[in-house]
Amino acid sequence: MMHLGAFFAPSGHHTASWRHPAAQADAAINVPHQLELARTAERGKFDLIFLADSVAARETHIEHMKRSTQYVANFEPLTLLSVLSGATKHIGLVATASTSYCEPFHVARWFASLDWLSGGRAGWNIVTSASEAEARNFGRKEHFDHEVRYQRAREFTEVVRGLWDSWDDDAFVRDKESGLFFDPEKMHYLNHQGEFFSVRGPLNVPRPPQGHPVLVQAGSSDTGRGFAAEVAEAIFTTSLQLTEARDYYADVKRRVVAAGRDPDQCVILPGVTYCVGKTDAEAQEQYDFMLSLVHPIAAREIAALTLGHDLAPYPIDGPVPDLPPPNGSVGTYLSAMKLARDENLTIRQLSIRLATGRNRFVIVGSVEHVADVLEEWFTTGAADGFNILPPYMPGALDDFVDLVIPELQRRGLFRTEYSGPTLRDHLGLSRPASRYALGGVSRPA
Amino acid sequence: MMHLGAFFAPSGHHTASWRHPAAQADAAINVPHQLELARTAERGKFDLIFLADSVAARETHIEHMKRSTQYVANFEPLTLLSVLSGATKHIGLVATASTSYCEPFHVARWFASLDWLSGGRAGWNIVTSASEAEARNFGRKEHFDHEVRYQRAREFTEVVRGLWDSWDDDAFVRDKESGLFFDPEKMHYLNHQGEFFSVRGPLNVPRPPQGHPVLVQAGSSDTGRGFAAEVAEAIFTTSLQLTEARDYYADVKRRVVAAGRDPDQCVILPGVTYCVGKTDAEAQEQYDFMLSLVHPIAAREIAALTLGHDLAPYPIDGPVPDLPPPNGSVGTYLSAMKLARDENLTIRQLSIRLATGRNRFVIVGSVEHVADVLEEWFTTGAADGFNILPPYMPGALDDFVDLVIPELQRRGLFRTEYSGPTLRDHLGLSRPASRYALGGVSRPA
Repeated sequence: MMHLGAFFAPSGHHTASWRHPAAQADAAINVPHQLELARTAERGKFDLIFLADSVAARETHIEHMKRSTQYVANFEPLTLLSVLSGATKHIGLVATASTSYCEPFHVARWFASLDWLSGGRAGWNIVTSASEAEARNFGRKEHFDHEVRYQRAREFTEVVRGLWDSWDDDAFVRDKESGLFFDPEKMHYLNHQGEFFSVRGPLNVPRPPQGHPVLVQAGSSDTGRGFAAEVAEAIFTTSLQLTEARDYYADVKRRVVAAGRDPDQCVILPGVTYCVGKTDAEAQEQYDFMLSLVHPIAAREIAALTLGHDLAPYPIDGPVPDLPPPNGSVGTYLSAMKLARDENLTIRQLSIRLATGRNRFVIVGSVEHVADVLEEWFTTGAADGFNILPPYMPGALDDFVDLVIPELQRRGLFRTEYSGPTLRDHLGLSRPASRYALGGVSRPA
Repeated sequence: MMHLGAFFAPSGHHTASWRHPAAQADAAINVPHQLELARTAERGKFDLIFLADSVAARETHIEHMKRSTQYVANFEPLTLLSVLSGATKHIGLVATASTSYCEPFHVARWFASLDWLSGGRAGWNIVTSASEAEARNFGRKEHFDHEVRYQRAREFTEVVRGLWDSWDDDAFVRDKESGLFFDPEKMHYLNHQGEFFSVRGPLNVPRPPQGHPVLVQAGSSDTGRGFAAEVAEAIFTTSLQLTEARDYYADVKRRVVAAGRDPDQCVILPGVTYCVGKTDAEAQEQYDFMLSLVHPIAAREIAALTLGHDLAPYPIDGPVPDLPPPNGSVGTYLSAMKLARDENLTIRQLSIRLATGRNRFVIVGSVEHVADVLEEWFTTGAADGFNILPPYMPGALDDFVDLVIPELQRRGLFRTEYSGPTLRDHLGLSRPASRYALGGVSRPA
């Protein structure tokens, strides 16, 4: 069975999504709308809701920024997912938090708390952050370098996992008769002293229902893939082509095995956006309408963001120039640059391709066609499932749930009921034992 | 009309609360229980729910700690209040966040997001944090000194308020027709460069429904009172005696005026705990039962925590020794030391007095008696209302809502309906204008 994430973005992933008649323009601060989306995704039996994040208003050329809803000003993900946990019963809840601009104690605590609030449905998407705008909100002039970011992310994640093990699963006795609330032998000080962090613990949240909330990552560069192979239990990718997706899938699964892990304990979910209709022609018409809503400069700025370089100095109908990898997300840069070269695209053509789904793979066509493409990726070694990016919401999410999912279910490719209560159950991931149950020695206070 | 906060602590404020038959022992991680408490408080027309916090498991002598539910391991406040926002419609939601161990960008964002999620019901209780255990979870060996803590808190609060003004109230146009999502003239860079923080902005959340979430503080030392007088819109105090409460009230209102503020825009709410029965005798019986649940060492450790000093070296039936103010919460130290001296208490006697309500003022008696005491404090210049600390929950919260509040309403001292949708409405606080509407100049990016 394939796994499906519902990647929510305010009003959708298409860069002009909010202008669509079937989009909610004030999605970024509209609670009933967010509740409706969560219930729709749960009705569709999605494995999880996924929220991206950055710790800055996403700055692009002002001609783009002023036309965009995306990551400009919206709900903070952990507080939003907490509210959504109260309106849902099954679906997983994955939020992004930065290892560059947060503290491991806070991150461990937020996700442990969300895991308790949701009955074991939390996941943490680990990002290293990629923009100078974020650095400048946290007292830094510049962003950390790529390698330093990942060294920091490794240590950060290790600390967070250690903090989640602060209390044994059965530490809290709560015996009203004797008055013993917890067994002190089952409380552990982490006392981590590392290159970037020194954190004593214990965490002030009991060990989460899932043991550890699910670890999610999106590494695409060589360093990123290495990190993902070590720690990620779900990986979101940005492959724009089937061959690229297959190469990525094979490479990362190989790395997971090399890291001594079971490859089934790391599910790979390429991001996919779509425009689905009753017929291919109807879908194409809808797609063309979506593109018509995009201001040309706004589209170019999505390409600029994807490549990590300003494209304003270059002619929009000229070729995509040779640009070095940015000190940002190298993965999206590599995919987009490969697509531009393989298909010999101009800046305008690349921009249009990327504008629909924030640089994810786009499927345009009938229900059968969309299902065919997903099936091909799933059955030919490119994906364990997908992170689905509705181009506008609620409309396009409804389309996916009402049209595509029933077709996937008919083909026996997707669940018709949830099999268990936790996100780990949905993704087929085992519950990690505590490091102390595995023989780890508790450190002195 | 008096203002009432419902101060929730896992299973209650009495140090052995969780052992009470009418307490929920697993309150710290029990979602349905928390939802029930929130609905009960809203049924009682409380102004707000208040959650304290620390960024460490609260460490006391292990003989106390292992018997205690309080701030050992429980839900994180912002995520919990987000869930409660979805289960309530009116009641305010106040969480504590530390200016020593958080970043202003995160804090501004969390509370702005909670304000949007709750439709204008968020408040931030500003604490400077007071323990070495917290410092050691964030890479520091020692806690900041008292004066440095408050300097940092001042600058932190200024940055948070500045970030909340990042977007004018009408910045988001969302005009589907023209494609303009926001007016760039109404986005502001804070570009704060200070002693402790440098933060550029803008915040990636629109200006909150309340303009600014309500600022709450609990300053008791001279420095703390000064800070509270400058910024706090609600103050929680720890006065243990009526005369002390009146002195505090008069002093702080004087300071508020001296700071150029309207004294009605700063409501003072002493913390009060209680044991209420049909008769005084029944209440006393219940109170004695509660005290019987407390282990003597556990009680002594509450006193030690309140004074900020280890009391183990001193005879428990001897006098409270002369101890200097700690590098922690000076306010609770001063109140407890004054009580011990005024009434010439032994360590055991002081411990018992403090154990019931975590060092807050205790009222034991009939409904009439409890209402009489609250009325006296309210009408004689000691309080604008109270932060109510149920000794155990849900039982004692139900008692307050079902017995005491109707009596206060009969006396015309407390609302029978909410007058508006926001926490500012409940507390009679005006909505702050943006600094830019008041003539502040937007800085360059």
